[in-house]
Amino acid sequence: MKTVDRFVVTDWFMQLQDRICSALEKADGKGVFEEELWQRPGGGGGRTRVIQNAHILEKGGVNFSQVHGILPEKIALALQVKGRDFFATGVSIVLHPFSPMVPIIHMNVRYFEVSSGEKWFGGGIDLTPIYVDPKQAHFFHKELKHICDLHHNEYYAQFKHWADDYFFIKHRNETRGIGGIFFDKLAETNEITLAQRFEFVKDVGNTFAPAYTKLMEENKDLKYGKQEKQFQLMRRGRYVEFNLVYDKGTKFGLETDGRTESILMSMPPEANWIYNFVPINNSKEAQTMALLTKGIDWISIV
Amino acid sequence: MKTVDRFVVTDWFMQLQDRICSALEKADGKGVFEEELWQRPGGGGGRTRVIQNAHILEKGGVNFSQVHGILPEKIALALQVKGRDFFATGVSIVLHPFSPMVPIIHMNVRYFEVSSGEKWFGGGIDLTPIYVDPKQAHFFHKELKHICDLHHNEYYAQFKHWADDYFFIKHRNETRGIGGIFFDKLAETNEITLAQRFEFVKDVGNTFAPAYTKLMEENKDLKYGKQEKQFQLMRRGRYVEFNLVYDKGTKFGLETDGRTESILMSMPPEANWIYNFVPINNSKEAQTMALLTKGIDWISIV
Repeated sequence: MKTVDRFVVTDWFMQLQDRICSALEKADGKGVFEEELWQRPGGGGGRTRVIQNAHILEKGGVNFSQVHGILPEKIALALQVKGRDFFATGVSIVLHPFSPMVPIIHMNVRYFEVSSGEKWFGGGIDLTPIYVDPKQAHFFHKELKHICDLHHNEYYAQFKHWADDYFFIKHRNETRGIGGIFFDKLAETNEITLAQRFEFVKDVGNTFAPAYTKLMEENKDLKYGKQEKQFQLMRRGRYVEFNLVYDKGTKFGLETDGRTESILMSMPPEANWIYNFVPINNSKEAQTMALLTKGIDWISIV
Repeated sequence: MKTVDRFVVTDWFMQLQDRICSALEKADGKGVFEEELWQRPGGGGGRTRVIQNAHILEKGGVNFSQVHGILPEKIALALQVKGRDFFATGVSIVLHPFSPMVPIIHMNVRYFEVSSGEKWFGGGIDLTPIYVDPKQAHFFHKELKHICDLHHNEYYAQFKHWADDYFFIKHRNETRGIGGIFFDKLAETNEITLAQRFEFVKDVGNTFAPAYTKLMEENKDLKYGKQEKQFQLMRRGRYVEFNLVYDKGTKFGLETDGRTESILMSMPPEANWIYNFVPINNSKEAQTMALLTKGIDWISIV
């Protein structure tokens, strides 16, 4: 039976980073990613690629890392593993466009090994439109369902549900955006090999660039004014709240002494907090807020 | 021996909120605090007072709350108490001025009782100047040392050290500002009664308005430009990071289902994240960054 080699996974993730950066530069039309290589004192390092003040993209990162060493006890407990030596590699992306009409996007794909023998893949991709357009949400989820269905007929339902629960700002009782898919600890089972898990993760990774560049293209020329910009800055504030209060990748990074600037590339270039923001009844802001809820079936909505 | 009555403490905190709001409105010259009363489903509630877009103050809150009920297990563990019924009351303040020349300030004073018998006071006050002026830092610490010394000759050294450790952004390896004092679990001991602890906390509370309004007055007319404003927005981003990643009050509030808008009134009106900000050598930004470190003796510095 085919097995999964950590170096093959690492290499595939590095190439994914290359391909995504090229596709984004092309779609943006102006921006160029700047690269920084870094080493982690405890073992491993990464290749951070950041874009700032481009044409469509205001700030974003497409980061590759491969880290190894000793897991802090807290993290080992959270992961429910006995081993303390770990190996992890992955690609993490967050993109903040200038225009409130172009959605924020996030993707992460990762592979993990622990010395007690566990090996698994994890990942997720979710979209945060400032204004939710049900047709685009439908498109995004249809793409994700398509690749899920190629691998297992329960993946989409299961991982969409998981994303609804994960990308949720509990203290606001609202989702971060329209969700997507989220999965973790996809290990080998009697039915599914680790190599098959890897093929699924590859398909997730490969879907990112075509799906997001289409959304960039479709929305980049839409007009907007002060009201839309203000709403974007508020929604970005919620994005900050999610990432710093709940996001496990951010916590893992900060607690394993990852490179702070690479971890926090997910922060928006600018964000606002207005006390007690309440959208005007029936406004487009109110329509979006009403859609920031779990359990919406974006496949059958249009 | 004099004891401490929870209703007397509650009442004193409510009056402190009144007095501080009046003093700040007077010093600002234009702003008026808006009040919202809220109730906590699990027991208690609060009186949130928020100021926005005033003359000197861009956004801030002076919040009183008195909450009681059942402690979540996680919090009981963190507090190292056996009892699960709790009573807590306090005043929390964060003020974000428009001008980068006027420091951000925070104060919290609180009283806690748990059904296993523990009763204690806690609190802290710390200053976050965007540009650190050693003379003003000296003034601020001298005021704090003065009231500490009235109560115990070890309070200042101990609580200043505690503040250095507490108001610390670990993942940046920098302090939030110039610190101040921080203290927790000030319970009755053989030497010090709870009533004496209360007198100390009263003095801390009473020091806030005169000390901060003096700093408002001294700095409000200083000129600044784009560079100072940009630096302020970056430093405010770090303030957000501290509050969402480390601040125990914020965590306690969010985990005990406090009122989100009251807890997160500490968020700045606007904040920026620039990838990999590095100040220019010998610039005033670099001078400030060099002072964001633990262990500076602000009393003997000038």
